[in-house]
Amino acid sequence: MAKKLQQSGEATSAGDLPPMVRPAKLRQLGFDGSQVDRLDFLAEEVPVALVYNGISHAVMMASPADLEDFARGFSLSEGIIQHAAEIRDVEVVPHEKGIELNIDLASERFHQLKERRRTIAGRTGCGLCGLDSLEAVARDLPRVTAATRVPLAAIDRALRDLPAAQVHNAQAHALHAAAFADTDGQLLFVREDVGRHNALDKLIGAITQAKIDPAGGFALITSRCSLEMVQKTAIAGLPILVSVSAPTALATRLADDAGLTLLALARRDSVLSLTHPHRLLP
Amino acid sequence: MAKKLQQSGEATSAGDLPPMVRPAKLRQLGFDGSQVDRLDFLAEEVPVALVYNGISHAVMMASPADLEDFARGFSLSEGIIQHAAEIRDVEVVPHEKGIELNIDLASERFHQLKERRRTIAGRTGCGLCGLDSLEAVARDLPRVTAATRVPLAAIDRALRDLPAAQVHNAQAHALHAAAFADTDGQLLFVREDVGRHNALDKLIGAITQAKIDPAGGFALITSRCSLEMVQKTAIAGLPILVSVSAPTALATRLADDAGLTLLALARRDSVLSLTHPHRLLP
Repeated sequence: MAKKLQQSGEATSAGDLPPMVRPAKLRQLGFDGSQVDRLDFLAEEVPVALVYNGISHAVMMASPADLEDFARGFSLSEGIIQHAAEIRDVEVVPHEKGIELNIDLASERFHQLKERRRTIAGRTGCGLCGLDSLEAVARDLPRVTAATRVPLAAIDRALRDLPAAQVHNAQAHALHAAAFADTDGQLLFVREDVGRHNALDKLIGAITQAKIDPAGGFALITSRCSLEMVQKTAIAGLPILVSVSAPTALATRLADDAGLTLLALARRDSVLSLTHPHRLLP
Repeated sequence: MAKKLQQSGEATSAGDLPPMVRPAKLRQLGFDGSQVDRLDFLAEEVPVALVYNGISHAVMMASPADLEDFARGFSLSEGIIQHAAEIRDVEVVPHEKGIELNIDLASERFHQLKERRRTIAGRTGCGLCGLDSLEAVARDLPRVTAATRVPLAAIDRALRDLPAAQVHNAQAHALHAAAFADTDGQLLFVREDVGRHNALDKLIGAITQAKIDPAGGFALITSRCSLEMVQKTAIAGLPILVSVSAPTALATRLADDAGLTLLALARRDSVLSLTHPHRLLP
């Protein structure tokens, strides 16, 4: 079977969801006094409520496509589920004020989530200091042990192909992308979102739903690489993360600890190697 | 009194806080097979707990400078306080796992915060659907009515001067900036952070603490302009927001509704006018 790229929005049933981008009449003001009216596009952004078995968990501002992927990826990367099969169903319900994602969790997992929420609510409400909250940020990450090897040429190829696959960003300039490429550098999935965490969560959801082995390739992100991006990538079992932008020092230390191969500041001619370069082939 | 630019980190007492950027030995891998070792800098990122009168409210990942500004700006822009004077004191306490910001709120305001938290906890815990959460995103914004007028040349000047004033980003490439310039375009405050919301909150805190009238100038941000950036700017009473990057459609609608002048995709030669251009002078 020939592998095919699936872009952002392609797997979304149109339904009553808002569009990813909207046309807008804008006026360009030159600092030399000139004025030009032009038709442009702006990225839409919608409140999305993640609702587990009827209980609202979080509201995120997100781009309104690939929301099933988002529900699945967020649930995995935030540790709400451990395995994809613990989600029995995802329902995308548009409302006037935003979009509700009704996620049907297997009952054991749902009880754990309720218990966790009760503990958190108790702690923050009962006068404990912020130290416990600080501890909660450091999450136990699974050690990335995949024996994946990727030639530098494959990373070069995926980086070259990515801009053309960011179909919404090409119009509206305000969207991040997260992509998955196989070890030949062929892009298989691209997901776009106004939020960089959301784009990565959507990608993780898409890979999971398609039953693709995350160790069979690498992830690319167009955004800055902070702590959470490394956490989500490692939890999803992706062995290599390539960022077009810069990483933080903390993200780099965490990638090192977790055994994740981190590359950053990817350019036309080169990429910076930060951690675990043994997965790269010359 | 001659006005002077205050850059990120200048007002921070060094103390035991981590540095904003750290040196790192990195290897640059050329796609032609070349390898170069170089010394570079990475932005540090630290868990910061906002603790109100001993009760932990939120933990954010942030750059470890200007944290008093952050505490004050976050409290204002998130509606926890209405006036700067409702914060009696801010204490910055470094721990091994992160930094605690102990914020001493006037007692009436603290009781309101506790009441609000109790309401939210009750709602999310009791099986209500996500609709109420979606409603909660739309916050009542004060209408921006300031009669501020700014010549385009002043915006041009501030945009030209901004990159040189982003001292940490010049080293580590991973930091957003938020700045405030007077109506002549002279930069007065620049704040940097790995998080774009944090950078803006730090700026709002710095302006407030210095007792500068926000209507006496305009704000610049280097980041994408989403809903929350417009919300924070309007709540802080800043009449004009200039973004170097693109806005979302929702952010643009909200700026229009709130009476905020929004300019975006600022370039060397021009800027896009999105809402309320009456505050611009040719």
